[in-house]
Amino acid sequence: MENKLLVIGTVAVDSIQTPYGQLEEAFGGSASYFSYAASFFVPVKLIAVVGEDFPDTFRSVLSEHQIDLSGLQVLVGGKTFRWKGKYEFDMNVAQTLDTQLNVLLDFQPKVEKSDSLPYIFLANIDPDLQLQVLKQVNRQKVKLVACDTMNFWIENKRQQLDETLKHIDLIVINDGEARQLTGETNLVKAAKKIQSLGPDKVVIKKGEHGVLLFYGEQFASLPAYLLEEVYDPTGAGDSFAGGLMGYLSQTEDLSFEGFKKAIAYGSVVASFAVEKFSLERLREIKLSDVEDRLKDFQQLLTF
Amino acid sequence: MENKLLVIGTVAVDSIQTPYGQLEEAFGGSASYFSYAASFFVPVKLIAVVGEDFPDTFRSVLSEHQIDLSGLQVLVGGKTFRWKGKYEFDMNVAQTLDTQLNVLLDFQPKVEKSDSLPYIFLANIDPDLQLQVLKQVNRQKVKLVACDTMNFWIENKRQQLDETLKHIDLIVINDGEARQLTGETNLVKAAKKIQSLGPDKVVIKKGEHGVLLFYGEQFASLPAYLLEEVYDPTGAGDSFAGGLMGYLSQTEDLSFEGFKKAIAYGSVVASFAVEKFSLERLREIKLSDVEDRLKDFQQLLTF
Repeated sequence: MENKLLVIGTVAVDSIQTPYGQLEEAFGGSASYFSYAASFFVPVKLIAVVGEDFPDTFRSVLSEHQIDLSGLQVLVGGKTFRWKGKYEFDMNVAQTLDTQLNVLLDFQPKVEKSDSLPYIFLANIDPDLQLQVLKQVNRQKVKLVACDTMNFWIENKRQQLDETLKHIDLIVINDGEARQLTGETNLVKAAKKIQSLGPDKVVIKKGEHGVLLFYGEQFASLPAYLLEEVYDPTGAGDSFAGGLMGYLSQTEDLSFEGFKKAIAYGSVVASFAVEKFSLERLREIKLSDVEDRLKDFQQLLTF
Repeated sequence: MENKLLVIGTVAVDSIQTPYGQLEEAFGGSASYFSYAASFFVPVKLIAVVGEDFPDTFRSVLSEHQIDLSGLQVLVGGKTFRWKGKYEFDMNVAQTLDTQLNVLLDFQPKVEKSDSLPYIFLANIDPDLQLQVLKQVNRQKVKLVACDTMNFWIENKRQQLDETLKHIDLIVINDGEARQLTGETNLVKAAKKIQSLGPDKVVIKKGEHGVLLFYGEQFASLPAYLLEEVYDPTGAGDSFAGGLMGYLSQTEDLSFEGFKKAIAYGSVVASFAVEKFSLERLREIKLSDVEDRLKDFQQLLTF
């Protein structure tokens, strides 16, 4: 099948501490979670960089799904990006213990002619790199460009981020980032300010509290799918975005109703992602499991 | 029409500061908001106490709706309970600036024989008083007893609160209180622990993040109805409980589906309550406005 969705982002080796345990040398990164989640729905092309130390076992994980790894550069002599984080009992907030950018410092994303796919996701990575990709694609072939970002870029690369946002149709960020980006506490107001920066569609992730969708003048909100145990929230937001974008790319329904359904799919995929460490739980499930839980979710919201 | 719902709680004179302004001598209290909200649906009997200073204008407010005020004691020489609170830009948390219990200190709720109504709500008030009411009603005539509480009673009257909870079918509390009551951060776990204390049904209010319902082994969650401006969150929780209990008392559908619908009604009533100061917004609307917004809410949650 032809690739339908392009993602650029990070592929990482994580070290994660949660109240449930600790995992060293875990597979992580925004593009890893995103592409795995999205490829339940459509073939995904991944553009990212790793070092020579990148384990074959991690590469095999991505190969399990319909993910095109031809854009995964291996930097000779380089070391893969590493992130070390910790979650306290409030699993909503990750505390970064260590970040080693390594190969990310020299990353030059190469975009092939064939990479001008109809759907593009610029996962959390330096806005300079997000822009570089955007400049290389044939925008006329692209139906929807979405992006994520994080506090670090909002603080340190605001100008480049603002430039990126001008070209974005959909931004998927968390509530703290939305507030930081706009100086607005109320998320409806924050979303409107973000819309004025470029993206007509704004999705705000609130962790265990669910998600808000702003679509032009329309809006909707969904709770999170309720779980008794959240083992590892790492990658929840990227898995959410992957489910959302994967579903949109599959249906090509970019109406408000289509987006509502897409955020529901994203929520369900994310609910699986946090049930085990790293990508472990996503690797166990099939699209039919996602569909089953979606029906359950729908049922819970029907009154 | 015959009374169907009994509430005991506080009737107060509030002083409120929010980022939108300040209101002195405002009508407030858990039983005021609750009874006003519930009486959109059924006739409500209110048991509470005020002082001689209680303004006639406040009494007239309650008289606008089907609220039986024969249980509103006026303590001769007494002063009405007063609460002074402040909200910062995060409108989820009230900061109490001053509390004057006044007549609440001597309150002896009197329950008539005819007060053994099918639905009872013990709004936020000293658990000793909640228990006193419970002991006076004919439990066989009562179909559902619900209660609220707050951090102060959890800290200072835990034993009495635990005793009350043994007799409760439904507790309606906020997320912070649920965590405080159980020592559990995860709200699913907290709810299960609360169930083991007595109430089979647990509703956890999360302010702008919506509400969780635990019904035996079943559960559901709803987001809040999204508002761009929250003028005054005071009474939101009591209005929510009023809408919920009012709707349940009207339909008498105590099934899981009935409760799901009831928390949706509660959410919608609460969304009106916060649009203006004090009871102002609730006074402007009719049940048909609630029904209209409920349809809109339903539509937003359909995907």
